[in-house]
Amino acid sequence: MGYFRENIERAKPYEAGFQPVSAGPSHDRPRRAGVVKLNTNENPYPPSPKVMEAIAGIDCEQLRRYPDPVGSAFRRAAAELNGVEPGWIMCCNGGDDLLRMVFTGFCDRRRPVAYPAPTYSLYPVLAKVQNCKVTEVAFDEEFNLPAKLAQTGAALTIVCNPNAPSGTFIAVEELASLADEVSGVLLIDEAYVDFAQANCVGLVKDFDNVIILRSMSKGYSLAGLRFGYAIARPEMIAGLMKVKDSYNVDAIAIAAATAAIKDQKYFKENVEKVKAECKRVTTELGELGFGVRVSFANFVLAGCMNCPASEIYDKLVERNIYVRFFNKGGLDDKLRITVGTGEQNDKLLAALKEILSK
Amino acid sequence: MGYFRENIERAKPYEAGFQPVSAGPSHDRPRRAGVVKLNTNENPYPPSPKVMEAIAGIDCEQLRRYPDPVGSAFRRAAAELNGVEPGWIMCCNGGDDLLRMVFTGFCDRRRPVAYPAPTYSLYPVLAKVQNCKVTEVAFDEEFNLPAKLAQTGAALTIVCNPNAPSGTFIAVEELASLADEVSGVLLIDEAYVDFAQANCVGLVKDFDNVIILRSMSKGYSLAGLRFGYAIARPEMIAGLMKVKDSYNVDAIAIAAATAAIKDQKYFKENVEKVKAECKRVTTELGELGFGVRVSFANFVLAGCMNCPASEIYDKLVERNIYVRFFNKGGLDDKLRITVGTGEQNDKLLAALKEILSK
Repeated sequence: MGYFRENIERAKPYEAGFQPVSAGPSHDRPRRAGVVKLNTNENPYPPSPKVMEAIAGIDCEQLRRYPDPVGSAFRRAAAELNGVEPGWIMCCNGGDDLLRMVFTGFCDRRRPVAYPAPTYSLYPVLAKVQNCKVTEVAFDEEFNLPAKLAQTGAALTIVCNPNAPSGTFIAVEELASLADEVSGVLLIDEAYVDFAQANCVGLVKDFDNVIILRSMSKGYSLAGLRFGYAIARPEMIAGLMKVKDSYNVDAIAIAAATAAIKDQKYFKENVEKVKAECKRVTTELGELGFGVRVSFANFVLAGCMNCPASEIYDKLVERNIYVRFFNKGGLDDKLRITVGTGEQNDKLLAALKEILSK
Repeated sequence: MGYFRENIERAKPYEAGFQPVSAGPSHDRPRRAGVVKLNTNENPYPPSPKVMEAIAGIDCEQLRRYPDPVGSAFRRAAAELNGVEPGWIMCCNGGDDLLRMVFTGFCDRRRPVAYPAPTYSLYPVLAKVQNCKVTEVAFDEEFNLPAKLAQTGAALTIVCNPNAPSGTFIAVEELASLADEVSGVLLIDEAYVDFAQANCVGLVKDFDNVIILRSMSKGYSLAGLRFGYAIARPEMIAGLMKVKDSYNVDAIAIAAATAAIKDQKYFKENVEKVKAECKRVTTELGELGFGVRVSFANFVLAGCMNCPASEIYDKLVERNIYVRFFNKGGLDDKLRITVGTGEQNDKLLAALKEILSK
């Protein structure tokens, strides 16, 4: 037919992790008894009680009127937390909203994107939609930053740090060098940084080409709310504002995300629980014979030595346990497993033990 | 500097109607005593009580998990209301989200957009971001559909119906003919259709190139929530899904918008109140000497005969009354006035009377 642009006609939509719950008409509430869902890197613990209070405090007027187009309340809270001014922050409808914006802002047929691979599988999908060339530079086995990434000449370089799906972390100094060397913009996708020991926010002060992406989905348990933010110099934020939808974040989301980011005590306790479970899962998977690197995120990438990853995946599904299997080279011998609650992790580990013993 | 694409560097951001309330740090709650805000076409009445119930019913699990990527609950409700199947509906983060998607999907340097003008001032902003040519075809004085619009050869033709800022309505049969004649896609932006007597949903059954845009901001009083939807044939929806952000609508918004669209009784009463006030405001503005065409939306475009529109605008601001003044040819002798509550309209009319008597 051809109503769409050719690159769109050829594009395949992003494949989100299987949602075992929203499939049929009877599943408005995303819940199903007995399912252990460790496939989309959600936080296993609920968001701060302050979030529920903020939502309960929403009134009709806030819904009737257009929201604050820049989410000033959240901007101020995020700025304070990150030691910058509010003009260095832009609110986004989830981190994915910012990812789309940077492709729109920096890339086209003559302005390629570059990133190390394997990484977040949304990047190539957005590149296809924006019709820009992609330079994928392969990580080594240890997921070190590839030296060649600095030399691609790309208009936009993306580094997911901690990286998904490896959970590995590249040192801040290495990314500072990269920011200095690349000719275009460096987006550091810190969606999982809440679980790491360091972050790159300091780089935005030294480099006018650095954008930091943050998400409220992981550390703050708000995947359902769609809220993320950018940190960058005000000139960069002003440019991104031009490609932002006029009212990209809604009034309830602004209020809820602001309440969440202000409750740092709850946030830190939540993150510590996830990190402790992550450590335990890593150790126990190792004892079961999986090859597991130390993770700086809320998931682990488990190399399957004695049994094909796809087979383990299927057998887990039979037991109502969902993890993520990527059917592509470099990843098809591994499973990405989100860190769940202690109880969920126990179920997973017991199931794996049973599967491998057969 | 030049990190951004040239078309983005040159672009100016969309200018939203002045928000007299979210300007300063002390205004998290968008409210200011005494302000009569008739400048951004918000509904003056609150949303359905069912919306507040739905929000109160949100639980932690819905926030912790990713939302349903296609908003199935809303899709079903909107499909039922419009007499189509759920596969003919796509949920959007406000109507603007869909507008951006159609530019991304259909337009580029060799694939222009066309629309009659004056119309919604976001269209040229989105065209600049997408770097596509624009063919503006001028409306006549009566805002009739320009015959030339069918002959532009554009990849995307947009008709806002009822049109903003004129409030005029083009008959369904005329748009059917246009759908038949254009070579590309016809997007009918029905953001204001809740206040009209007819709509174009029937056309999606006959034409595979028609997309209908609907908004929950106006008739359903949910501008703060950011929710809109597309109606089109499933093949068209499937294509649009490729350019949609993976999770573009959040869990709370899905629940709240679904509750709103299901409460048709409240919706109809609300709309009737606005329509009655619109009629009264139109009559009384006419008696004050303004040139006002019958409006099929929740605003009127008032031609200022005896006093410059900009002067009236300024004098209204002095009285804490905000309407919309567009400082451009064809509109700079008019004011666009949102229909408020009876009380707000009384204040506006009294102020105008006073201003004009001086």
